[in-house]
Amino acid sequence: MIPNLKEPYGKKTYRRLSDLVEYFADRKAVEAILSRDNPVVYEVYEHPVPPEGEHLIFATTVLLSGKVGEEFYFTKGHFHTEPDGAEVIIGMGGTGVVLLQDRAGRCGEETLQANCVVYSSPGYAHRVVNTSKENLVFLSICRADIGHDYDTITTKGFAKKIVEKEKRITTE
Amino acid sequence: MIPNLKEPYGKKTYRRLSDLVEYFADRKAVEAILSRDNPVVYEVYEHPVPPEGEHLIFATTVLLSGKVGEEFYFTKGHFHTEPDGAEVIIGMGGTGVVLLQDRAGRCGEETLQANCVVYSSPGYAHRVVNTSKENLVFLSICRADIGHDYDTITTKGFAKKIVEKEKRITTE
Repeated sequence: MIPNLKEPYGKKTYRRLSDLVEYFADRKAVEAILSRDNPVVYEVYEHPVPPEGEHLIFATTVLLSGKVGEEFYFTKGHFHTEPDGAEVIIGMGGTGVVLLQDRAGRCGEETLQANCVVYSSPGYAHRVVNTSKENLVFLSICRADIGHDYDTITTKGFAKKIVEKEKRITTE
Repeated sequence: MIPNLKEPYGKKTYRRLSDLVEYFADRKAVEAILSRDNPVVYEVYEHPVPPEGEHLIFATTVLLSGKVGEEFYFTKGHFHTEPDGAEVIIGMGGTGVVLLQDRAGRCGEETLQANCVVYSSPGYAHRVVNTSKENLVFLSICRADIGHDYDTITTKGFAKKIVEKEKRITTE
């Protein structure tokens, strides 16, 4: 499922539940899981390129299947800054949702699945949510000189969350 | 095979053999085909974005299966200029080759197939060649303010060509 590259990935990042404590709505569920385990929520594989505007970062994320309380596993999500450039997100396998939120807090959602492209325009934060029982694998591409603003999402969160209630996937 | 988009593609471009007369090595084969027909060699589907550096172009190309003489169908190929930005090429279906050539004329090749990423660094021209019996479908992503230099390839060509000889795929 991982896109082939002649050279090995230079950087592999794990995000475990302990890295995402502030992000999930149900803090008691977070603490209950962390008392037993610290599961990997997603892995990011990145090919090294110089951090310059002529280069493009292309990173593959494997977002695992799982829930914290009612809420499906997701990536932290972030805005871009200086430059506030676009990101192209391409589904490689699995099924999920991309939340797209502007700085006024307006939040939309797009389906992400294999061979599906989601465009996160400049000015939008993006978070990927795995609503399936299998890994959600996607490729993200943006300018290599992009800045990342995680703080806005850490403090304000996304206006929508994707949950499972009575075995149905619902947006709240 | 075409990546899903909620909005329809704003721009669809056909490249027919008559648009590629200067590119194939065997001019007699070109003329022989054109005397009967003017086949589509590839189609490009592009989603409209503003031509600004914060945006990214993402275009899907369907490169048909076929040959002109011994040479497999290919895209024109081009360098980028001002900015000379990178391009990420992602295989969606089919099998082929990406030729990558620098301005000194050094030419390399990479396999392109589903779930495979090829990175065309700044300073490299790229041409995609369909070496299979089915459509080669790929997605290309680059900065939306990129300049295109087709002239260098029109006049100097690529240093390598991918041909079929005695039923074998060969690089010359």
